[in-house]
Amino acid sequence: MEDIEVETLADPDLRDPVLVEGLPGVGHVGKLAVEHLLEELDSEPVRYIYADEFPPQVTLNDDSVAQLARAEFHAVDAGDRDLLVLTGDHQAQTNSGHYHLTDAFLDIAEEFGVEEGYALGGVPTGELVDEPSVLGAVTDEDDVERLEAVDVEFREDEPAGGIVGVSGLLLGLGERRGLSVACLMGETSGYLVDPQSAQVVLEVLQDVIDFEVGFESLEERAEEMKEVVGKIQEMQSQQQGMNDDDLRYIG
Amino acid sequence: MEDIEVETLADPDLRDPVLVEGLPGVGHVGKLAVEHLLEELDSEPVRYIYADEFPPQVTLNDDSVAQLARAEFHAVDAGDRDLLVLTGDHQAQTNSGHYHLTDAFLDIAEEFGVEEGYALGGVPTGELVDEPSVLGAVTDEDDVERLEAVDVEFREDEPAGGIVGVSGLLLGLGERRGLSVACLMGETSGYLVDPQSAQVVLEVLQDVIDFEVGFESLEERAEEMKEVVGKIQEMQSQQQGMNDDDLRYIG
Amino acid sequence: MEDIEVETLADPDLRDPVLVEGLPGVGHVGKLAVEHLLEELDSEPVRYIYADEFPPQVTLNDDSVAQLARAEFHAVDAGDRDLLVLTGDHQAQTNSGHYHLTDAFLDIAEEFGVEEGYALGGVPTGELVDEPSVLGAVTDEDDVERLEAVDVEFREDEPAGGIVGVSGLLLGLGERRGLSVACLMGETSGYLVDPQSAQVVLEVLQDVIDFEVGFESLEERAEEMKEVVGKIQEMQSQQQGMNDDDLRYIG
Amino acid sequence: MEDIEVETLADPDLRDPVLVEGLPGVGHVGKLAVEHLLEELDSEPVRYIYADEFPPQVTLNDDSVAQLARAEFHAVDAGDRDLLVLTGDHQAQTNSGHYHLTDAFLDIAEEFGVEEGYALGGVPTGELVDEPSVLGAVTDEDDVERLEAVDVEFREDEPAGGIVGVSGLLLGLGERRGLSVACLMGETSGYLVDPQSAQVVLEVLQDVIDFEVGFESLEERAEEMKEVVGKIQEMQSQQQGMNDDDLRYIG
Repeated sequence: MEDIEVETLADPDLRDPVLVEGLPGVGHVGKLAVEHLLEELDSEPVRYIYADEFPPQVTLNDDSVAQLARAEFHAVDAGDRDLLVLTGDHQAQTNSGHYHLTDAFLDIAEEFGVEEGYALGGVPTGELVDEPSVLGAVTDEDDVERLEAVDVEFREDEPAGGIVGVSGLLLGLGERRGLSVACLMGETSGYLVDPQSAQVVLEVLQDVIDFEVGFESLEERAEEMKEVVGKIQEMQSQQQGMNDDDLRYIG
Repeated sequence: MEDIEVETLADPDLRDPVLVEGLPGVGHVGKLAVEHLLEELDSEPVRYIYADEFPPQVTLNDDSVAQLARAEFHAVDAGDRDLLVLTGDHQAQTNSGHYHLTDAFLDIAEEFGVEEGYALGGVPTGELVDEPSVLGAVTDEDDVERLEAVDVEFREDEPAGGIVGVSGLLLGLGERRGLSVACLMGETSGYLVDPQSAQVVLEVLQDVIDFEVGFESLEERAEEMKEVVGKIQEMQSQQQGMNDDDLRYIG
Repeated sequence: MEDIEVETLADPDLRDPVLVEGLPGVGHVGKLAVEHLLEELDSEPVRYIYADEFPPQVTLNDDSVAQLARAEFHAVDAGDRDLLVLTGDHQAQTNSGHYHLTDAFLDIAEEFGVEEGYALGGVPTGELVDEPSVLGAVTDEDDVERLEAVDVEFREDEPAGGIVGVSGLLLGLGERRGLSVACLMGETSGYLVDPQSAQVVLEVLQDVIDFEVGFESLEERAEEMKEVVGKIQEMQSQQQGMNDDDLRYIG
Repeated sequence: MEDIEVETLADPDLRDPVLVEGLPGVGHVGKLAVEHLLEELDSEPVRYIYADEFPPQVTLNDDSVAQLARAEFHAVDAGDRDLLVLTGDHQAQTNSGHYHLTDAFLDIAEEFGVEEGYALGGVPTGELVDEPSVLGAVTDEDDVERLEAVDVEFREDEPAGGIVGVSGLLLGLGERRGLSVACLMGETSGYLVDPQSAQVVLEVLQDVIDFEVGFESLEERAEEMKEVVGKIQEMQSQQQGMNDDDLRYIG
């Protein structure tokens, strides 16, 4: 295997394609978002990317069939335009690996004629958020206005420390290739997988790219998450109550 | 030395060879299993693999003669077919190193005409197991049936997290080369070197590949292990009894 | 992107240029110093250096526009001579990365005809210093005298352990290219960003290279730092007083 | 700078040269030993080796002149034969780096016609040793006898875990080049720099290679070490006595 090996599964002509990236990250917001797109819209896998930069492992499906660590590109029919969706279960394991992989991802995007892209992710707030906002970062100042028009918030010093990993490099390396890339980050606690934050990010993406997708299954997952969180909070306050009781008794 | 250097010791023609891998891992199950094959059956070393991916060290034999870290291929006479056995004392020290070494291993296997392989290992259960099962993973769904026929168990979500290291990559990279590779993993506590688990895995392998090997020495080692474990458990319960005594006294 | 990629923004002819390096380090002394030069004197950016050796990230400016991690060279008008100033927000992330980046930096310096250079930094003392000295290290013993003449101190065994990172390699690799490079290190606590130490280093640099720059903004920053430190010390002694009180009470 | 760069300072013809390696390691035994040879016998530096595998740093001499991290080969006049002595202040910083550097070292040794070598080091015992033995390891079983004849001890399972780093690889890679290399390891506590152990190793080396060197300065250093150790032990027992007193008082 080459250090980075690209397997071609299909080579469709894409209509004014938009790159949409959702690799694992904070709250799995980006990953949940793109997985939802792949479930709801028509799509076909176009590229698999294997790399010695990925963890040396295979994952097993329900039939115990092994699959080598990889990233995947899917072509998605989003109505008037096509999306070139990038997803996977792994990120590069070294700093330089992030650069090399992102270069490979952008090579593929450019092969398909992509000129515009969105890196989806989460920004950790440290606490549960009832109505998460979507924060933004851009490669081109001119993009701020049209993103603010669909409720993306641009706040000074957020995220603090910038954006790390493939999402950040899609902006940094994308800009140097003349692409227009923006990062859309849903606020999330950082403690849990967050379907609600994924939905908020997708709602913004719908408006930015002008396509439609249903949210029922994501909303169900968000409800399940809320119940789970509710039970954890209940258990914690019971335990806290017990601790207070103990202190009163001993004192 | 090249980054990965292969030394050829012999180049026999192998009869419908099967790759059998047993490098160090959980409970040393795979390693014990293949070492047993090398002790019991006729074999000759065919390849030594040195690599800057291995730890920078020499091990000393009983006469204080140094041997550079390496992996070894042996051709083993298993009756109607030959086995190409892969073993050694070391694994790669970096993530990408696992990929590069496994590629080198598969190159050698293909040179010998191998089309079928078995990666032997252990799956940790966290506790001592009286009658360990052998769990399986495959590259090809069609292999499940014939493996279930010889008592390999395929359980959803086991091993959790997939298979990491050379064993996993033999499946992942082997599949991409059109080889049929399966992973056979004996249940083991994960705390001890486990000859019993190695035997169970070999019993399955016998049936899968259709060869025969005696198990007396492995059974002896398993008995010794059982005695050692028994003594440890005895010491632990004596200590537990003493602790209980102390608590009663002080309370 | 190449492993180390150099972007050319301008190619002015520089007058007897001197390399001045100020990358992040102890107390950010070097970085503050060169940032001050860029604020006070006329300059233009000449080179941007991107590398897979840098952290895989983008930083965001106040308008949320992303900038890929990079080092920068600026040509600065220092009166009779020009300075070739090297700065940035990041250092290499691996040991070998430091070597490769420093080689790239020296290639660029040599392209501009640089024969003389100064690596600016801090040497940690572990405590606040009222009147920081500037310690020195050289590639050429003949340079000691003229540096001592402008109050650089050369002390045996300081810094203990030598000089690590790009500053050290600018001396080590610079010497092997026949360049004359010195390291000027302002004493600093090591706990805080230190504008006062940066100023002391620049005062020495002024004398060594024979140029002038105002220090008002650096002095203001040093005053602010002093206030902040004063408040922290006040809070600490109040807390200490409280602790003493507690001890008296309980004793 | 190339990844590994060799600077030639001189190219003398060496008489039946023997490689003697003393890089930093346990108790600095090897390093002290070869430094002693360089102090006592006539020698000239022949090669400096720079590498991105070394730490990215310069050390400063007493005049604050910077020296880039490097390994050094010196040609030493040992009477009837010459020694090719390898020393330095640093080891490679990565696993693969040890392989690459040792290959470079052996290339140089072979350029000079070396066929025989000794890697000097320490083996940690965990406690102070009054009369340290010298343990051995070889590439060739035939060398054991002549080394035992000069009091080298060959013990099964010692050192446990083999020999790691450049010393081990000089044996492992040296053997694959047809060189005869032995490792001579003086017993040492592992806690302190150990001139006594260095002397014992050199006494063996004298007999093996048949040359002579005085030991006065090493003996002085050993005496100083003994005094330092004596004082530490005294302080420790005083502290122990105090602790016992406290316990009696409180009890």
